[in-house]
Amino acid sequence: MAHPIQVDSERLAQCAREIADAGRELGARGWTPATSSNFSMRYDDAHAAVTISGRDKGRLGVDDIMLVDFAGQAVATTARPSAETLLHVQMYRRDPAVGAVLHTHSHNQTVASRLYAAAGVIRFSGWELQKAITGYVTHESDLDLPVFPNTQDMPELVAQVDAWLDAGKPLHGYLIDGHGIYTWGRTMAEARRHLEAFEFLLAVTLDLRRLGA
Amino acid sequence: MAHPIQVDSERLAQCAREIADAGRELGARGWTPATSSNFSMRYDDAHAAVTISGRDKGRLGVDDIMLVDFAGQAVATTARPSAETLLHVQMYRRDPAVGAVLHTHSHNQTVASRLYAAAGVIRFSGWELQKAITGYVTHESDLDLPVFPNTQDMPELVAQVDAWLDAGKPLHGYLIDGHGIYTWGRTMAEARRHLEAFEFLLAVTLDLRRLGA
Amino acid sequence: MAHPIQVDSERLAQCAREIADAGRELGARGWTPATSSNFSMRYDDAHAAVTISGRDKGRLGVDDIMLVDFAGQAVATTARPSAETLLHVQMYRRDPAVGAVLHTHSHNQTVASRLYAAAGVIRFSGWELQKAITGYVTHESDLDLPVFPNTQDMPELVAQVDAWLDAGKPLHGYLIDGHGIYTWGRTMAEARRHLEAFEFLLAVTLDLRRLGA
Amino acid sequence: MAHPIQVDSERLAQCAREIADAGRELGARGWTPATSSNFSMRYDDAHAAVTISGRDKGRLGVDDIMLVDFAGQAVATTARPSAETLLHVQMYRRDPAVGAVLHTHSHNQTVASRLYAAAGVIRFSGWELQKAITGYVTHESDLDLPVFPNTQDMPELVAQVDAWLDAGKPLHGYLIDGHGIYTWGRTMAEARRHLEAFEFLLAVTLDLRRLGA
Repeated sequence: MAHPIQVDSERLAQCAREIADAGRELGARGWTPATSSNFSMRYDDAHAAVTISGRDKGRLGVDDIMLVDFAGQAVATTARPSAETLLHVQMYRRDPAVGAVLHTHSHNQTVASRLYAAAGVIRFSGWELQKAITGYVTHESDLDLPVFPNTQDMPELVAQVDAWLDAGKPLHGYLIDGHGIYTWGRTMAEARRHLEAFEFLLAVTLDLRRLGA
Repeated sequence: MAHPIQVDSERLAQCAREIADAGRELGARGWTPATSSNFSMRYDDAHAAVTISGRDKGRLGVDDIMLVDFAGQAVATTARPSAETLLHVQMYRRDPAVGAVLHTHSHNQTVASRLYAAAGVIRFSGWELQKAITGYVTHESDLDLPVFPNTQDMPELVAQVDAWLDAGKPLHGYLIDGHGIYTWGRTMAEARRHLEAFEFLLAVTLDLRRLGA
Repeated sequence: MAHPIQVDSERLAQCAREIADAGRELGARGWTPATSSNFSMRYDDAHAAVTISGRDKGRLGVDDIMLVDFAGQAVATTARPSAETLLHVQMYRRDPAVGAVLHTHSHNQTVASRLYAAAGVIRFSGWELQKAITGYVTHESDLDLPVFPNTQDMPELVAQVDAWLDAGKPLHGYLIDGHGIYTWGRTMAEARRHLEAFEFLLAVTLDLRRLGA
Repeated sequence: MAHPIQVDSERLAQCAREIADAGRELGARGWTPATSSNFSMRYDDAHAAVTISGRDKGRLGVDDIMLVDFAGQAVATTARPSAETLLHVQMYRRDPAVGAVLHTHSHNQTVASRLYAAAGVIRFSGWELQKAITGYVTHESDLDLPVFPNTQDMPELVAQVDAWLDAGKPLHGYLIDGHGIYTWGRTMAEARRHLEAFEFLLAVTLDLRRLGA
């Protein structure tokens, strides 16, 4: 399915280093328990560098990263990409500005995904940290994070995200019920800032509920 | 009771290193408070390497590990094994595939053990991370973690575990009321992945209850 | 607006090192998520060293610090100061004893700011750690931490703080709704001790509410 | 009041190292916020090495430790001992077996001290970790941790502890309302194990209450 490409090993190694750095720091925070989670970066306008399935995301090396095309097929390797690779390449395919995608599985992300699964969305409002999401310049706007039902059928998950985007609604990340978050950015640094902001917003939102507010 | 054996010091040192590494990392997470917890690895088809009683499990060295036979008796040493050694050797004896057993005492494990002691079991359902337990391929199945009553009589604890296994019910770990978790795997890496997954599943389950869900 | 000054690069570097040290340690605690937060030190009786806008506050170097005058205008640089610089220079302007100002954005600070926004103040009473605030010698006194409404209009925030001070009420720090804390001290060490004390007092106060006390 | 003594600088340095090690590790856990907390070791049958007032307990060096007699008076130094020194020397005076005393100020210790102040005692029962307290061999016994009212009058605090001990009730540690814990052991290692055990028992007890159990 994938056309043969001449792999630029320097470019791939650069992606791998940024992914491994992110994995180590996110793993140290406990957001990637038990080999869950996966990370990727855009390699070019038709390929992405993604984490190989089953590796410990807190101890990634450059050998744990592989190339896939935007159909999610392995390129120039016999390794198997992470199961959720289709959700990564979807973002690169739909938005040429997306340069990095992060999927983590923190406690707060997972708890919130269950708690708001029925509602289908978490609305953040009045938090200064909403401004950490690119495009948000005031705490007074609403920031919506959808929660999609979980399924082992990846194309079905892809279709849920497509439907949201096709409806023209803003999307900076999403939860999957019982399963953690996906978020992204133009660069790895922006993707990590978005991830950190969503984690914070989820944590404070859950805590206000614990406090009966 | 134990037959004299020729100790392969290289093999024992290898087990000790894996156990010490696990202890240090689990201790750093706060899962082994106040010299609680104990760890072991299968040494051969009749012996296991286990932690010596009373040592700080976050600072284990190779001298803190000893050999026992599957009756829990010390082999080739005058050291005293951890009190719960019988629960470790039980798993090696009953299942030749088991290569490592971990007992930790985290906050969440202990709180959950009290909260679900009357029910006798915690059922996990709908969590993606159930798939971190070997043999589970979908979040849609149920994963049961039994909670056994605590007693200072080790043979009685052993009998409770035997009874569960003899009933043919799947078992990937168990809690003891007020006392933490036991889990295992074919390798130390798998045992640690199972431990990390159970800890995560207990944490999110407790938190949903705090949130009134 | 600012008079040209002869920058004492040694003095500025000393401020920058103290600010960077504080940022690294506060960032390691998770109190500066997603490039939020900002820190400053008095440079002289008309200028302060402040963090440049948008930098990762957990990885500050000396190049991330700049000079401003007490109107918040950049001095001897084309860099842009943090948006909340006006709140920093206000404290230096109003109180010649203030030597350092810290603004962080921890989970507890942010949750408390929402929970007590309607009340407008959090009163601490009976906590030994109130004595960590300079001037408090007993746990029996009351320590008030006001919560001001958030706004993107900095002069309006400045006016709220001025109004409190003009009313002659003691002020050792304040929260902004949804937005974290400001606190200060004669030295960076004192500012950090005050910050640590307020964080602790907020955490225990919130937890007593979670516990229904 | 104190008789002149010939200070054994090697013995004092040994005490100071053990105290500094404990301080650094307890500080890293966040149990000594904002220069709170103090630590000591028995020096001989009439003197103790204690932390000097106001030092950052997470960064103690040997110069932060001083000698006092069992009346709490400084010996061979002009430094001022921690305000709560009288509570340390009381334990050395009353029990010749006590070799180290630790006072920390963790979140859980402080919250529990407020929550159980009216009851005057926290009773632990059914927790395996009670066995980490020397003398406890089963989870089936009760372990009582008294909570004394806070006061700035140290002799009054001393009298409360004396009254409990004079009544012949077992005492392995105590809380002061709003103020943290005191615990001790024959060695620094035992004192630290007791501290770790009480912290754990307080944390799980509070959490069961949060969970409505």
